Amino acid sequence: VSEMEKRIAASFSAQGLMATLGAELVFVAPGEVRIALSPRPELTQQHGYIHAGAITSIVDNACGYAALTLAPAGHEVLTVEFKVNFMRPASADRFIAIGKVIKPGKTLTVCQGEVIGEREGRRESVALMQATLIIVAIDS
Amino acid sequence: VSEMEKRIAASFSAQGLMATLGAELVFVAPGEVRIALSPRPELTQQHGYIHAGAITSIVDNACGYAALTLAPAGHEVLTVEFKVNFMRPASADRFIAIGKVIKPGKTLTVCQGEVIGEREGRRESVALMQATLIIVAIDS
Amino acid sequence: VSEMEKRIAASFSAQGLMATLGAELVFVAPGEVRIALSPRPELTQQHGYIHAGAITSIVDNACGYAALTLAPAGHEVLTVEFKVNFMRPASADRFIAIGKVIKPGKTLTVCQGEVIGEREGRRESVALMQATLIIVAIDS
Amino acid sequence: VSEMEKRIAASFSAQGLMATLGAELVFVAPGEVRIALSPRPELTQQHGYIHAGAITSIVDNACGYAALTLAPAGHEVLTVEFKVNFMRPASADRFIAIGKVIKPGKTLTVCQGEVIGEREGRRESVALMQATLIIVAIDS
Repeated sequence: VSEMEKRIAASFSAQGLMATLGAELVFVAPGEVRIALSPRPELTQQHGYIHAGAITSIVDNACGYAALTLAPAGHEVLTVEFKVNFMRPASADRFIAIGKVIKPGKTLTVCQGEVIGEREGRRESVALMQATLIIVAIDS
Repeated sequence: VSEMEKRIAASFSAQGLMATLGAELVFVAPGEVRIALSPRPELTQQHGYIHAGAITSIVDNACGYAALTLAPAGHEVLTVEFKVNFMRPASADRFIAIGKVIKPGKTLTVCQGEVIGEREGRRESVALMQATLIIVAIDS
Repeated sequence: VSEMEKRIAASFSAQGLMATLGAELVFVAPGEVRIALSPRPELTQQHGYIHAGAITSIVDNACGYAALTLAPAGHEVLTVEFKVNFMRPASADRFIAIGKVIKPGKTLTVCQGEVIGEREGRRESVALMQATLIIVAIDS
Repeated sequence: VSEMEKRIAASFSAQGLMATLGAELVFVAPGEVRIALSPRPELTQQHGYIHAGAITSIVDNACGYAALTLAPAGHEVLTVEFKVNFMRPASADRFIAIGKVIKPGKTLTVCQGEVIGEREGRRESVALMQATLIIVAIDS
């Protein structure tokens, strides 16, 4: 386990919302992070699908941590903004949010994110994100 | 209480995620809906601020229900996509998400949303959303 | 005419695309800029309406210059990203793009933009933008 | 040359703005369309780079026509909204806008677009788009 993975795992564990949602950090590599989420009644919208807000929360995090994997030491990453398209009702046995760095930068990083729903070996894209992150020096 | 308010309150109550977040429907009028959220450790990101995903969840809902207030009977509203800018760390005593219809349509509705943080009488804008919703006939 | 107005007018005049489109800088105030465009066959899409790209060009500029009105001396503004909703076919006698600063910042500024179509005294919103701009020191 | 290619070429030729910009339709396949643009002083912003509005115009079109390649006969495509990140100054010998369908739909189609700047054999991504298009029956 690299320093980067440890650092991201520690940050992920410090996020109250991720525990509340039941999200799990499942993959960390330079420029790409994945977060898994299992459907639960506590995460639904009014038709029993997983709420767009829960889907957005995990893919925002996947993009943010993907940006962090390429940020210089002593820096952290904040979400400036993102846009998400919801392409299908979020109904699956398990969701995987994938965040990838498209353009790393000294100040701003651009990421793409996707949420895949898995069910009985089928995989369908549920949401698509394009995000802007800012790299800031950690106050010490 | 109008039929519209009852319908939106019932839909809101059916959303598992809103109960999980502790969000509250506080205002419903034609073209505008407001949802309140109080900060709790269960909703934080790694620095103790409220997570962008929780902020997004309430303002997405405020926009969706605002669109629903102007939709014809027998129809419901789904989020096509949204974009959110995070303008300040989400730190406040209470957050109010305001969703407003900018352009209602037969098929697509455009909304703007804002999340205001309130603290000791001060109000600051925390997040800004521009969203596209689709109006669909309810299957029966 | 203030220094700021002169500076923005000079920058606007230096943009080849604005002359090509026939766009005109019509209003500059702290935090708000307006640009006008008259329809011409050279600006159309395939149905004779004004092309989304031309509409976007003027409202991007209106937002950028609005951000510049609040930027410190010796700095310029670049567009990081924007999102635009097209709410009606762009058919009018004249279009006015209005860019307004929502949240000025030392590094990033958030603006909202709108394009209004005017015809025989009627005004209709054609497009809605939410944009992120970055303030950078001018190299000298 | 397929019926689809002829149809898209005819629509492209009917767009006054594409001729004004000097844009060229260079590739049409099911789910993907490419448009080329050469830099000219008529297309610049104030520093001599190609204006974000011109870059956006070609990638909007590439996405729209990509969506059209998968739309049923007797239908056309309109841009609902898009978001674009500008990742580098648009300086190159030639720009290629690539639009790809990510999720085709009966009503709404989601596309991703990219603008690549080519110079002396080097290719750099200049802009990244995520777009929502609507498929509508042609009035007859």
